[in-house]
Amino acid sequence: MKDTYTLPAAADFHVHLRDGDVSKVVTPTIRFGGVDTVYVMPNLVPPVTTVSMALEYKKRLQNIDPSINYLMVLYLHESIDANVVRQAKKAGIVGIKSYPAGVTTNSSSGVISYEPFYPVFEAMQEEGLVLNLHGEVPSDGKDITVMNAEPKFLPTLQDLHRRFPRLRIVLEHTTTADAVEAVRSCGDTVVGTITAHHLSILVDDWAGNVFCYCKPVAKLPADRRALLDALVNSDGRFFLGTDSAPHDISAKKGKGNAAAGVFTQPYACQYVLSALEDAIERGDIKDEAVTEEVLGGFLGEWGRKFYGIAQSTQKIVLKKGSEVIAESIKGHGVEIVPFQQGKPTWTVEWQ
Amino acid sequence: MKDTYTLPAAADFHVHLRDGDVSKVVTPTIRFGGVDTVYVMPNLVPPVTTVSMALEYKKRLQNIDPSINYLMVLYLHESIDANVVRQAKKAGIVGIKSYPAGVTTNSSSGVISYEPFYPVFEAMQEEGLVLNLHGEVPSDGKDITVMNAEPKFLPTLQDLHRRFPRLRIVLEHTTTADAVEAVRSCGDTVVGTITAHHLSILVDDWAGNVFCYCKPVAKLPADRRALLDALVNSDGRFFLGTDSAPHDISAKKGKGNAAAGVFTQPYACQYVLSALEDAIERGDIKDEAVTEEVLGGFLGEWGRKFYGIAQSTQKIVLKKGSEVIAESIKGHGVEIVPFQQGKPTWTVEWQ
Repeated sequence: MKDTYTLPAAADFHVHLRDGDVSKVVTPTIRFGGVDTVYVMPNLVPPVTTVSMALEYKKRLQNIDPSINYLMVLYLHESIDANVVRQAKKAGIVGIKSYPAGVTTNSSSGVISYEPFYPVFEAMQEEGLVLNLHGEVPSDGKDITVMNAEPKFLPTLQDLHRRFPRLRIVLEHTTTADAVEAVRSCGDTVVGTITAHHLSILVDDWAGNVFCYCKPVAKLPADRRALLDALVNSDGRFFLGTDSAPHDISAKKGKGNAAAGVFTQPYACQYVLSALEDAIERGDIKDEAVTEEVLGGFLGEWGRKFYGIAQSTQKIVLKKGSEVIAESIKGHGVEIVPFQQGKPTWTVEWQ
Repeated sequence: MKDTYTLPAAADFHVHLRDGDVSKVVTPTIRFGGVDTVYVMPNLVPPVTTVSMALEYKKRLQNIDPSINYLMVLYLHESIDANVVRQAKKAGIVGIKSYPAGVTTNSSSGVISYEPFYPVFEAMQEEGLVLNLHGEVPSDGKDITVMNAEPKFLPTLQDLHRRFPRLRIVLEHTTTADAVEAVRSCGDTVVGTITAHHLSILVDDWAGNVFCYCKPVAKLPADRRALLDALVNSDGRFFLGTDSAPHDISAKKGKGNAAAGVFTQPYACQYVLSALEDAIERGDIKDEAVTEEVLGGFLGEWGRKFYGIAQSTQKIVLKKGSEVIAESIKGHGVEIVPFQQGKPTWTVEWQ
């Protein structure tokens, strides 16, 4: 790897910006991570289930930082029908996100069975809206745990692709070798996003560390190797979606269960570069595999192409190892601890 | 299961009582859990590596609660040789605990290779000291994680048993179906302890909850089923060792890694009864499998028999569901959060 890369501004195809005070702290950090375009998750409380809610949410975000391109997304919900899909398309909404009920933060309004949504998927296929899948099934205490919740979901991904072959589907935050293989087994309307932190951490890292705990959880070394391989041998099928998921420190540190989510927004590109350096050092990928084309593609070009969004005309310069990750980001009565706080990483400068 | 059981006082064959202020808070809670005999882990700072350290530690514990029978244990360390083994036997020390270097709390002085200790194991076999194994290998980022660290250790268990067939070996805090099978595959000089919390929790429970995080970590549903089966079909080969591991709340809640350990001392027997109730409800074990003989055996009789310690003449009465687990145990400037704080459980009374 080189010490400096000049690349088009990055796009982050999976972000949680929240609302209210948290959004005021998080949204201004998007550019720190080298990102000018974000795909905004709709799991607010209540969830973003209507076109007007999405457009109002977009306005609130634009009021915080108007320089960012916010791609808006609806929350798949029983109130959404083919008519809503057509309205959404006209209003410039890009996709609809499916959360299986109960698997992660604010997913209680989520999907129990996909079959009732087939007419919605049919309309999305016709209108060109993207279906974003949180690819996990709920734990059952019998067989399914956080460790195999994603592999157990993959038959559903493959079934939906078979039923709606022209529907563009994103398997969000891919974490397992099985999931990488499942995406590759589908046609090119199916792609996967990969987070920065899953390129770096394993089950050991979230054992006892709530700031590395997210859903889906980080898995095993062979899974991490598969994600790194998917990045460098992507063919445009895998690209960055950080799933940056901010929570106030009070939701992370208590006697009960910590909220799931790793906060990576301010260092989106930096973490990816650091993870690749570490992977080369471990021997998981070859140094020569990390080309400028791969970096530019994974960090934005491939995702923009899949979503049919114009490539960025802005440039960022990534420089090796001169920045230290903040201990926490504070403001508006909120304190959020970023992933790998206190560790050195790369620097992003805007050209 | 019945609503009331009258049983001999329990014995807990794996406890961390710590030293100083923490020991003053924890030691008085031993009896609350229905226990009159404890097998005391030696991983203090510095570790208990000499006979005099063990005897002084025992005196400090007796000063806190003289009514408990403290079985003392040395920490396997390069300073221990056959001579120390003979001294230990004369001084009434019962066993020697092996910690692989770096796998859990205060294990930095632990074992890297077992071969240098073969003369020590030979002497232990002759003198009748018990070898207690923390059965995990360190994670390596390539293949070994907290999820398979125990199965990867089992060839070492089997190798040590083959080399020293008369040496009594305890595989401590057994957490996997593989480990249960490995213990059963050995001769009857090899047994396993099982904690109360591993009868209850899975990987999902410590995901995001530092108070359920311990080493070895809780595993998968099939592993929990194997532990429950080992309890009810023990043949005396599996018995209770809670691995109660108190940490001040400050070591559990921070920005970095939480200390590994689940605190179960005050409710040792209660947790086991609650776990069995839950297992019956899930269908993991049959109600009729939980006999008074099984309960009395697992909670003390089988362990005392294996260790050659007199059976207890004291009796405890376990009553169903009338107690609520404390939110925390405080004193001497220390606050310790027990496992499943705030939940209802069984009650122990001394007859």
